[in-house]
Amino acid sequence: MYIGVIGAGICPAEVDGLAERVGAAIARRGGVLVCGGLGGVMEGAARGAQREGGLVVGVLPGEERKQGNRHLSVALATGLGDARNAVIACACDALIAIDGGYGTLSEIGFGLKMGKRVIGLGTWRLVSGKGLDAGMLVADSPEQAVELAFREVSKSIPSLETSAPST
Amino acid sequence: MYIGVIGAGICPAEVDGLAERVGAAIARRGGVLVCGGLGGVMEGAARGAQREGGLVVGVLPGEERKQGNRHLSVALATGLGDARNAVIACACDALIAIDGGYGTLSEIGFGLKMGKRVIGLGTWRLVSGKGLDAGMLVADSPEQAVELAFREVSKSIPSLETSAPST
Amino acid sequence: MYIGVIGAGICPAEVDGLAERVGAAIARRGGVLVCGGLGGVMEGAARGAQREGGLVVGVLPGEERKQGNRHLSVALATGLGDARNAVIACACDALIAIDGGYGTLSEIGFGLKMGKRVIGLGTWRLVSGKGLDAGMLVADSPEQAVELAFREVSKSIPSLETSAPST
Amino acid sequence: MYIGVIGAGICPAEVDGLAERVGAAIARRGGVLVCGGLGGVMEGAARGAQREGGLVVGVLPGEERKQGNRHLSVALATGLGDARNAVIACACDALIAIDGGYGTLSEIGFGLKMGKRVIGLGTWRLVSGKGLDAGMLVADSPEQAVELAFREVSKSIPSLETSAPST
Repeated sequence: MYIGVIGAGICPAEVDGLAERVGAAIARRGGVLVCGGLGGVMEGAARGAQREGGLVVGVLPGEERKQGNRHLSVALATGLGDARNAVIACACDALIAIDGGYGTLSEIGFGLKMGKRVIGLGTWRLVSGKGLDAGMLVADSPEQAVELAFREVSKSIPSLETSAPST
Repeated sequence: MYIGVIGAGICPAEVDGLAERVGAAIARRGGVLVCGGLGGVMEGAARGAQREGGLVVGVLPGEERKQGNRHLSVALATGLGDARNAVIACACDALIAIDGGYGTLSEIGFGLKMGKRVIGLGTWRLVSGKGLDAGMLVADSPEQAVELAFREVSKSIPSLETSAPST
Repeated sequence: MYIGVIGAGICPAEVDGLAERVGAAIARRGGVLVCGGLGGVMEGAARGAQREGGLVVGVLPGEERKQGNRHLSVALATGLGDARNAVIACACDALIAIDGGYGTLSEIGFGLKMGKRVIGLGTWRLVSGKGLDAGMLVADSPEQAVELAFREVSKSIPSLETSAPST
Repeated sequence: MYIGVIGAGICPAEVDGLAERVGAAIARRGGVLVCGGLGGVMEGAARGAQREGGLVVGVLPGEERKQGNRHLSVALATGLGDARNAVIACACDALIAIDGGYGTLSEIGFGLKMGKRVIGLGTWRLVSGKGLDAGMLVADSPEQAVELAFREVSKSIPSLETSAPST
């Protein structure tokens, strides 16, 4: 299971703490964490996952691997600029959006467009022009966000459900 | 001035009419219209701009130029899939979002991230995790949306303001 | 018909002259010229096509439209960096490679991979690991390169052949 | 050290064997292997690296992770199509081209353009329009190719040379 954690590159300590707990919970369940590889929410989540021995992939916008934070198992310098946000959404089975800025908004849009589950944790509230809700799931805690992500992806992939009945 | 018109690939007749008026107003002011090149809002806007003799660029997600609607001056088959949304946002000075779905949401996010003016016409309402408004401008009519786009871009480009005092 | 002209961003006057003739010949035949939008071969070809009243599209690697040379009808700032070379190859029916450096090599590779005709004018000679020729067509003059491009594309698109028997 | 292995998606058994030895040698030296994630040379190299306990990243062109071969530590579905070749070149410190088709040619071009060392093993021979060699290094065996890659990258990164004097 590949879970993306998306959020701003700079964030207050409280949000960093939430991101770290999300990353840790993903790793404990054996998920691969995919993020943008930079600071803020991306770094918090990577730190949490690394601490639990998880695999962490950072999909960087620039051309230099050293831009990545120091908690990445794989730092992929794409050179694509902001278009790398589409790669992150494409590569994941589900996305967890924490707080977040405009880049996060683009990733939420891509995730929903691509039919991925998007779970929000204190992130954007989105109401369409017709007054409809965007269809994100809302979590109250980091652990619940990760549980929702795993549960929803398992539902949509029958073979996963069979092979991992406890989730 | 390059103005992007973003919105869903399928839309009701009323929204198509708004898009056509937006496209026409952009062309009348001499702007280049950039869109995703497919149907719905993209086609409505392209039709309006073409009717007024404007230049219309369609940035297509697929590998086939024939996917483009028949109102494009240039149909650019990118082969990038949804990542072409980042190209549209990057290529424009301002974006006008009409109604819209999830892809539109990703483009709004990119536009705001890249510091472009984004004008909404019956599109997503966005409230950040901190309860702040996303900073989109809101228009009541197609013509007002285009006027806002031109006025705001002129403000941020002093040389344009000087050379085009009437806007 | 969309014809890409690819070559280095800096080139000697002689190569610039060849590029200008290629661009002019494309425009005279009513083709859309697609190039990377920068200097050297790209600028020479754009100048030639513009002089003949043709439509010229520059697909720029950076985020700023002003990086484009001044002979472009449309300057598309993609923000994709070198990955924009894949977009150029994808967008065209045929590619004409003039002289050229490493970026040109990547575009030749993409063009051949995507099944497009690639015509070389004083460009790379490519021999595969098995000793086979790469399958580029070789032209002796700018005008012949453009004629080859139009003839080969017409062959592979029956409907075009019917509607334009003289090519 | 991130080493890219590039080559065709279908290859004869002999070439597969060379790719496997290249992958194994990269893993034994502690390098991260980056490849396109599909079959042929990509699969052979991934198999070799996995066997030696190495980390293997597959950067896939499509939207489905399951397209990846079964020897990948990380399968990144980019959805970018052929443009993912630019990502592979960007992400690596050096590239090893084995045999190879047109896609390989695009990656060699990108690698050289981005200033990366490109080592050829029975791959394209490239002569520029001016009659100059393309500047690839040529290896006679898989092990020599990997040794060249590590040595050349160490040279260009002084801090690496200091910490790994034996290479």
